[in-house]
Amino acid sequence: MYRSHNCGELNASNINTEVTLAGWVQKSRDKGFMNWVDLRDRYGITQLIFDESRTNKAVFELAKTLGREFVIQVKGTVIEREAKNKNIPTGEIEILVSELTILNAALTPPFTIEDETDGGEDIRMKYRYLDIRRNPVKNSLLFRHKVAMEVRKYLSDLDFCEVETPYLIKSTPEGARDFVVPSRMNEGQFYALPQSPQTFKQLLMVGGMDKYFQIVKCFRDEDLRADRQPEFTQIDCEMAFVEQEDILNVFEGLTRHLLKEIKGIDVDKFPRITYDYAMKTYGNDKPDIRFGMEFGELNEFAQHKEFPVFNAAELVVGIAVPGAGNYTRKEIDALIDWVKRPQVGASGMVYAKCNDDGTYKSSVDKFYDQDDLGQWAKITGAKPGDMIFVLSGPANKTRAQLSALRMELATRLGLRNPEEFAPLWVIDFPLLELDEESGRYHAMHHPFTSPKPEDMQLLETEPGKVRANAYDMVLNGNEIGGGSIRIHDKATQQLMFKYLGFTEEEAKAQFGFLMDAFQFGAPPHGGLAFGLDRLVAILGGQETIRDFIAFPKNNSGRDVMIDAPAAIDEAQLKELAIKLDLK
Amino acid sequence: MYRSHNCGELNASNINTEVTLAGWVQKSRDKGFMNWVDLRDRYGITQLIFDESRTNKAVFELAKTLGREFVIQVKGTVIEREAKNKNIPTGEIEILVSELTILNAALTPPFTIEDETDGGEDIRMKYRYLDIRRNPVKNSLLFRHKVAMEVRKYLSDLDFCEVETPYLIKSTPEGARDFVVPSRMNEGQFYALPQSPQTFKQLLMVGGMDKYFQIVKCFRDEDLRADRQPEFTQIDCEMAFVEQEDILNVFEGLTRHLLKEIKGIDVDKFPRITYDYAMKTYGNDKPDIRFGMEFGELNEFAQHKEFPVFNAAELVVGIAVPGAGNYTRKEIDALIDWVKRPQVGASGMVYAKCNDDGTYKSSVDKFYDQDDLGQWAKITGAKPGDMIFVLSGPANKTRAQLSALRMELATRLGLRNPEEFAPLWVIDFPLLELDEESGRYHAMHHPFTSPKPEDMQLLETEPGKVRANAYDMVLNGNEIGGGSIRIHDKATQQLMFKYLGFTEEEAKAQFGFLMDAFQFGAPPHGGLAFGLDRLVAILGGQETIRDFIAFPKNNSGRDVMIDAPAAIDEAQLKELAIKLDLK
Repeated sequence: MYRSHNCGELNASNINTEVTLAGWVQKSRDKGFMNWVDLRDRYGITQLIFDESRTNKAVFELAKTLGREFVIQVKGTVIEREAKNKNIPTGEIEILVSELTILNAALTPPFTIEDETDGGEDIRMKYRYLDIRRNPVKNSLLFRHKVAMEVRKYLSDLDFCEVETPYLIKSTPEGARDFVVPSRMNEGQFYALPQSPQTFKQLLMVGGMDKYFQIVKCFRDEDLRADRQPEFTQIDCEMAFVEQEDILNVFEGLTRHLLKEIKGIDVDKFPRITYDYAMKTYGNDKPDIRFGMEFGELNEFAQHKEFPVFNAAELVVGIAVPGAGNYTRKEIDALIDWVKRPQVGASGMVYAKCNDDGTYKSSVDKFYDQDDLGQWAKITGAKPGDMIFVLSGPANKTRAQLSALRMELATRLGLRNPEEFAPLWVIDFPLLELDEESGRYHAMHHPFTSPKPEDMQLLETEPGKVRANAYDMVLNGNEIGGGSIRIHDKATQQLMFKYLGFTEEEAKAQFGFLMDAFQFGAPPHGGLAFGLDRLVAILGGQETIRDFIAFPKNNSGRDVMIDAPAAIDEAQLKELAIKLDLK
Repeated sequence: MYRSHNCGELNASNINTEVTLAGWVQKSRDKGFMNWVDLRDRYGITQLIFDESRTNKAVFELAKTLGREFVIQVKGTVIEREAKNKNIPTGEIEILVSELTILNAALTPPFTIEDETDGGEDIRMKYRYLDIRRNPVKNSLLFRHKVAMEVRKYLSDLDFCEVETPYLIKSTPEGARDFVVPSRMNEGQFYALPQSPQTFKQLLMVGGMDKYFQIVKCFRDEDLRADRQPEFTQIDCEMAFVEQEDILNVFEGLTRHLLKEIKGIDVDKFPRITYDYAMKTYGNDKPDIRFGMEFGELNEFAQHKEFPVFNAAELVVGIAVPGAGNYTRKEIDALIDWVKRPQVGASGMVYAKCNDDGTYKSSVDKFYDQDDLGQWAKITGAKPGDMIFVLSGPANKTRAQLSALRMELATRLGLRNPEEFAPLWVIDFPLLELDEESGRYHAMHHPFTSPKPEDMQLLETEPGKVRANAYDMVLNGNEIGGGSIRIHDKATQQLMFKYLGFTEEEAKAQFGFLMDAFQFGAPPHGGLAFGLDRLVAILGGQETIRDFIAFPKNNSGRDVMIDAPAAIDEAQLKELAIKLDLK
């Protein structure tokens, strides 16, 4: 062992102890006759002192050659520090060094290894192994481990069994694009990497495993939006002989446990709202409920006058922005420009200031009187000093636009406190959603989700109205998990594939094994999956997942550190019976 | 919830309780007026009783329609059983059923769902979800989970951090064949699936993570020998600022913990033997030391007479087989045939019986007298009643042949007790091994293994003699883990690549990122990896890993249940910029 202690554990109780430490040179301060070095490892920083009068000359001189990030080993005595640092656990002591060994020299790192670094995203990714030395990244990885361990302990204590499902499976054209793997031993055939272990976990239920979980990598070959990764990690779960209520209770319990254990926060029973309610109230199926600004539908009090924009709209809907009544004309115009950007897509925005004296001043005073505006205030919950913003147009689009505005304003107003946690369940998702391009219905969750029995008869007539036993857990405006009660009989599963436009042959070729399995005694079952990357980022109070992944890929799916993907040998291609077919 | 209790928990203390159970019909015994059904779930079996006089008529009749593996839900009362079954925890009670719901009917399963099934390997794999209902498979998966949890807890408590390394990495021609993944976003380029997270865990050490582990899937596209899988699971570990001794102690501690927690067995400090000693004494670098039969080298007492076979041999080596002195001529001939099979490859075998009266009878009495044979007995440790078998030829081959014989005889003699555990370390592996075909040296472990400093000077002159700081943990004749102290400076790593026949360009293209990393302050580090599949199989007292893997592949790398790999769409190929190039 290169050390007797780590760099985070020595304190006043160790004074006069002989110790051996090893780590990285964080920085050194050379005062000529005295040289202090901050020695860093994963556990902390310990100050070393080299002193002309007390340190052997060779060691003293060698210490002067130490550069940043040199890896060294020192022996010495723990002594009391003169200028104590109350901010770190080792701040009361320092090590008077008697022996110094340079274990490895270091080139000057391309960015500073500090909490606030001067390195940009690209260079930090190229030298990710240096970036990981920084506290924000290192602590994120340690935090992720802690969360994963707590998840495993909690579920394991409830008799869940972690089962490893295969990574080399079969490609299915349904859903997102698969990554595929040519099989050398089965020429012309390919494996696919799993987008999720969905069918396998259902087969485990058929197999009687009863309660399954797995923390598992999943893969999607999608064009990467910001903060998406081609490989990501799920906490994947399934239970047999359960109804939706049981699943919600178990995983609400898990989440409550994590908030308590990891963050020290007690959370009450999670609110449950329906998908329809979420869309009407927040314009969003993953609402952030840490703050209000709930939608007020204004059709009744906005379409009775001569304002043609509102009169032509399917929906007129507004929010009250707390304390925004004093926004200047310039600020308001900037917000109008903001909602008109193509990313949001509104064609305009109406506003009404709620003056402190109870009167209103709106951009549509020509059409609406104080009574009308008073109704708007009542419906949106606006108080004196607030601002009401109103959008109008086709219902779905307008809700989405107002949701974007709501989130943006909440961020600007500091209402999205990362240390406040407001989880909820959104339930009763639609079974199907219409793809406007193809005019076909797609499974909103996936084709294995069971329709609510009472809605089954709508499948033929109004498929869009069929609700599913499907649910999402939402935390601070992010969907962190979702799942459903599954179909567990062959007839319903066949029917579902039919409604989704599979021919009988296609359904059999792709999912025949699952429908076969359902014939041999499949229990009722259901489950869900959490996105671990997102969950740890939110619990860690961060917006982006990247620092919680040790070696993330960039938006082109590249690992810039190892330079992958890369060309492979002609011989490798030949063995795999494929060749390039470049466009 | 479909049940108030599971099928393994009710006993006499629950008598007169109203319960709801759900599960599978294991079997039913219909006596006309009375019908017993064994209801099974993951947790056990509970007997149900339907009784003409006490059960509602409709329920009584419905119960008669239940087939094997039907999924049912029952409500009823726990009553005392007349004929108690002491072999199961629920054997004192049965459920007098008042309500019966068939949740799902079942076709007759293609093999019996019993501990001893009538289903062959192929059909069990096709219907793996039914196979998993059988206790031997189900319990193996639960056992695997328990082992994995204990590993995680133990390492986590020692401050190891589980870090997920990427699955989409870069292909390197060194070592075994990679599975590759065409990149759609980076046309003409491929990811590779990791054969192990080796370079990433080393980069985590450069990154200061200090103690890393991961239970992780790894991939090798090899022609599958029996009991190998293209995807397998490793317990992958790495530590910084350690020497070999530290690593051996930590992972010996882990293994001792598992033996204690999982098997209730206390194991003393593990023996440590060198690779050279293992080869000389057992002919094998993963010796089974649960029994003796250590090799005795007989050259001195076998090459001084006129027996040309021995005189021409590089090595004459024997083992004493306990109690085998009474083998008949026929049995001995069968063993001689056994060692002459191509899988073993000996050209013949000499034997010497150790008679109870202290005399010897050998197949080479023409050449060797009683004194000679007495020496053989002394060297091999043979006692009266034992049999000495002797092989001769080129040293390495002969050792391998005798090792095969040793293991075979131990199996036949019942000396390989699966409930006895004899772990050991084999250390001081050679750094390089000669590939006889190419005449080139390959890294025995991998190119990142550090040579022993004292052997460095042999690299130029006698590369085969350079020993590495490399070690294997061996358990009951299986290598269950192995690792090494790594190179941590660029110069040595470059030198190693040179000796392994890499050009400077090749080394840079494939591992430049690692050598770069070594320049920025890499700490001394090392680690190891355990094969989890094998480890759990051995701890579970089994020879094969297949029942410890939920969904294994067959020897052609196929998943016969889901029928993967499979052809993919032309459109998918086009998007990936590849086409088939069938031979």
